[in-house]
Amino acid sequence: MKTLFIGGIKSGKSRLAEAYILEQASADKPYYLATNEVFDDEMQARIRVHQQRREDLFATIEEPVKLLEALQKCRGPVLVECVSMWLNNQLYHQIPEADILQELEAVLQLTCDMVLVHNEVGLSVIADNRLARQFVDLSGKAAQLMGQHCDQVFFCSAGLKMKMK
Amino acid sequence: MKTLFIGGIKSGKSRLAEAYILEQASADKPYYLATNEVFDDEMQARIRVHQQRREDLFATIEEPVKLLEALQKCRGPVLVECVSMWLNNQLYHQIPEADILQELEAVLQLTCDMVLVHNEVGLSVIADNRLARQFVDLSGKAAQLMGQHCDQVFFCSAGLKMKMK
Amino acid sequence: MKTLFIGGIKSGKSRLAEAYILEQASADKPYYLATNEVFDDEMQARIRVHQQRREDLFATIEEPVKLLEALQKCRGPVLVECVSMWLNNQLYHQIPEADILQELEAVLQLTCDMVLVHNEVGLSVIADNRLARQFVDLSGKAAQLMGQHCDQVFFCSAGLKMKMK
Repeated sequence: MKTLFIGGIKSGKSRLAEAYILEQASADKPYYLATNEVFDDEMQARIRVHQQRREDLFATIEEPVKLLEALQKCRGPVLVECVSMWLNNQLYHQIPEADILQELEAVLQLTCDMVLVHNEVGLSVIADNRLARQFVDLSGKAAQLMGQHCDQVFFCSAGLKMKMK
Repeated sequence: MKTLFIGGIKSGKSRLAEAYILEQASADKPYYLATNEVFDDEMQARIRVHQQRREDLFATIEEPVKLLEALQKCRGPVLVECVSMWLNNQLYHQIPEADILQELEAVLQLTCDMVLVHNEVGLSVIADNRLARQFVDLSGKAAQLMGQHCDQVFFCSAGLKMKMK
Repeated sequence: MKTLFIGGIKSGKSRLAEAYILEQASADKPYYLATNEVFDDEMQARIRVHQQRREDLFATIEEPVKLLEALQKCRGPVLVECVSMWLNNQLYHQIPEADILQELEAVLQLTCDMVLVHNEVGLSVIADNRLARQFVDLSGKAAQLMGQHCDQVFFCSAGLKMKMK
């Protein structure tokens, strides 16, 4: 079973995804695959907030780049938090788009239960700079891939979720 | 009863919220709490359009900053138009984020019927400038607070609403 | 019957709209009204991807500006791909907003079956530059007009659609 929580910045998608996987995986401690790579202080502060929330509830794995490899080691339900940051890291490390999407497709074919968190970033005017446009495109393609392979998809806003699939 | 209409710029959320509160409060004239603070001509023009639409239908109160104080005086259903602008004004007046969210929480605990209008601003890439990022974060936290306390939440696009809660 | 598919960049709205019209118009080849005007290589590359997908399935008409005139000639179901680009072209050619919206309203009163694709661009902070703000406003007004006149409206994200109307 694969479930996607997609939404905007501070839409509550991470909290909703965490609550969901904890409810599902009542007995076992689920894995928490954190994809954040720390670039600056602002990001560090954000990460700390997330970390405090998940202490004791999850078995945390930190892996900003090699998502498939890290997930192959998980022996139980896993929360991927978040796909957007992983895409961002891949672009930063100059991985070609086709390779990124191929890795994501392989991830989605793993048999373990998975809850994925992803930012919807395309509901605005086209960005001024080429890198942002590239990211928006890749992000949307990744979202479509997840939308196709996931059994359930929730669109999040205001801390609430709407079922799309 | 508290109801939130959340949506994008020109999504029709204000019209939908106005129509909704007028339908609910059939006998009484509801209050219209306008939070706009006029910064420039473009904003003045926008406000005028809103004003023309609400004449005779609402008892208008203009209060850009002291939301709780203004709402405590209302003796009937009130439309808060809009929370985003109030957040913006609070930031402009350098009110700390925690204080803003605390005031919003107090607002949501008032007993009067309330319809709140709010912009969803997080469905895009992360903004270039720090002030915009700060606003997006605050806006999302406020939206989550409203999503939690409101009895009904509608997501708006294309002049239509989808029920989230 | 008029149907609107609204969503973000790379939300899958075009694919969903194409699949929908092809399913509806099972016997006849539907028209494909392409509104793209080629401004640069990046856009040319995007258009080519769309063209490859629709070969043999549609009778393509390319018309970046005179939408009403082009649609009046269609004798069967037509996919308008997309309204956002047409709005953009109209602004580029300095057509006043009122005239654009009037033409769109006339389009929506044509009797032929129509599937319209449109970008939701307002779910972000207000843009820095005036042209972008003007576009976001016009786009939202156009979306509201379509939301009002269409029989069905779908909001798209992650390659999936949610029915709004």
